[in-house]
Amino acid sequence: MARYGTVAIVGVGLIGGSIGLALRRRGLAEHVVGIGRRQTSLDKALAFETVDSVSLDLAQGVKDAEVIVICTPVARIARDVLATAADCPADALITDAGSIKGKIVAELAATAAQPESRGVKRLENEVHFIGSHPLAGGEKTGPQAARADLFDGRVTIVTPTDANRSTETQRVSLFWRELGSRVVCMSPDEHDAAVASVSHVPHVAAAALATSTPPTGLELIGTGWLDTTRIAGGDVELWRQILTGNRRHVLSALVEYEATLAGFREAIANENDEQLVKLLQAGKDHRDAVGS
Amino acid sequence: MARYGTVAIVGVGLIGGSIGLALRRRGLAEHVVGIGRRQTSLDKALAFETVDSVSLDLAQGVKDAEVIVICTPVARIARDVLATAADCPADALITDAGSIKGKIVAELAATAAQPESRGVKRLENEVHFIGSHPLAGGEKTGPQAARADLFDGRVTIVTPTDANRSTETQRVSLFWRELGSRVVCMSPDEHDAAVASVSHVPHVAAAALATSTPPTGLELIGTGWLDTTRIAGGDVELWRQILTGNRRHVLSALVEYEATLAGFREAIANENDEQLVKLLQAGKDHRDAVGS
Repeated sequence: MARYGTVAIVGVGLIGGSIGLALRRRGLAEHVVGIGRRQTSLDKALAFETVDSVSLDLAQGVKDAEVIVICTPVARIARDVLATAADCPADALITDAGSIKGKIVAELAATAAQPESRGVKRLENEVHFIGSHPLAGGEKTGPQAARADLFDGRVTIVTPTDANRSTETQRVSLFWRELGSRVVCMSPDEHDAAVASVSHVPHVAAAALATSTPPTGLELIGTGWLDTTRIAGGDVELWRQILTGNRRHVLSALVEYEATLAGFREAIANENDEQLVKLLQAGKDHRDAVGS
Repeated sequence: MARYGTVAIVGVGLIGGSIGLALRRRGLAEHVVGIGRRQTSLDKALAFETVDSVSLDLAQGVKDAEVIVICTPVARIARDVLATAADCPADALITDAGSIKGKIVAELAATAAQPESRGVKRLENEVHFIGSHPLAGGEKTGPQAARADLFDGRVTIVTPTDANRSTETQRVSLFWRELGSRVVCMSPDEHDAAVASVSHVPHVAAAALATSTPPTGLELIGTGWLDTTRIAGGDVELWRQILTGNRRHVLSALVEYEATLAGFREAIANENDEQLVKLLQAGKDHRDAVGS
């Protein structure tokens, strides 16, 4: 018997599609329903067999779901959580896959001022939302890029708040482990500070490299440039939402990165080879510690 | 019949070994001799079949060579060119695979003050040196990483000076094309400015990212960080030589990169989404233009 009855996936792109594929290949759910706003996306999800059925109607799609994963762009997640909460079964577990967490919690908290909303009311009592962020994906997008092993060995960060009980945190953590992830728990704010350093600043660093390379230089690139700028090919609107949605942490991590870069520049300018070697070696040690 | 008689490779690591493998697989040389300073390196070169024979004695190794490729670290190249010039056949062609070019030309020019040196004298008349830089390789090193297809479709920059005749430039260009490279010619100084942007600054950017990631952050990295920092795993001493050997161009390209990064930071800080999208889109356009 499958561990889950129906699992609903709202947003059937790379992440949503990969969750669906992983659930189906591992026989974890009796039924996986994909929910989207465009029929063409849903048709693709069916064509790539990432879900069992599809729905354009969120209320209809989530009504029997035991677990609902919101995989829409970060700017939409809070409202999709509320809409889901209004119509999913009691005791359903809602999580998401967004790259930032504090903003979503803040948006949901702000809606508490609308007690007339069915979603707000049920989120307080009957259904549970805990944010998640699987550190997987890349510059490719869409259901055609979905892979059943996308989460294998990758970390998923689960971000409970004071409003969550530990049993709910355990349910979400188990869900991601069953998809192949290693799970790390931290607060939404700790999450946002950490990913600013390890994900958002690397994106800005890569984008700035690609941006500042003149067209004539593009004829001379080697594997180093190709690796270092790969993520700059990512979706612009997605990254605008992430960088502005996590503004405070991104800015402080960027300032730190710029200070480190300035340290390299000064070591080179001052012909301080000892310091340059120390900096290069620290980078190599960190890089070598994590494999390829 | 092979195009070349004997080709000598001085320094049988990743680049030298890959040149040897490519020459042998393509049947381009009657004999490939690998020259090194450590018997263990030469034993590895033989074990991986990157060369036909080996020699610890440079004078002996180059004495019958029609083409000699110096693949030693950049800090050694000028002196290896001179030593080669002293003992190679008349009309032999000497090139190298160093990542910087102006410093080597300057070091060779400085030795012109030693007219008693046989290498200096012969370089002026009987043998020809033209610098080359194959834009291939990566963070792996040593003969065990050598690949016959390392240069396939990659650019090699050939850097003639006023002292070279066009027939010599053509000979060097043909050599790299036969190994699978596309060849671009420019002056040593133009080369150094270009690679500062497309290779040396990306290395510093990657190393600074890896350096500034705290050990706790290393547990949370995803594919983006892995790609963006990959080259930070490169050999520290090699990169110290490159960054300090191309100091002037690296510093000016670094300042330009830092200005671009500051532009991203300001767009985020000032909530100027239009400018942020423009910068991200420019990066994506450059990245998408070159493939994966």
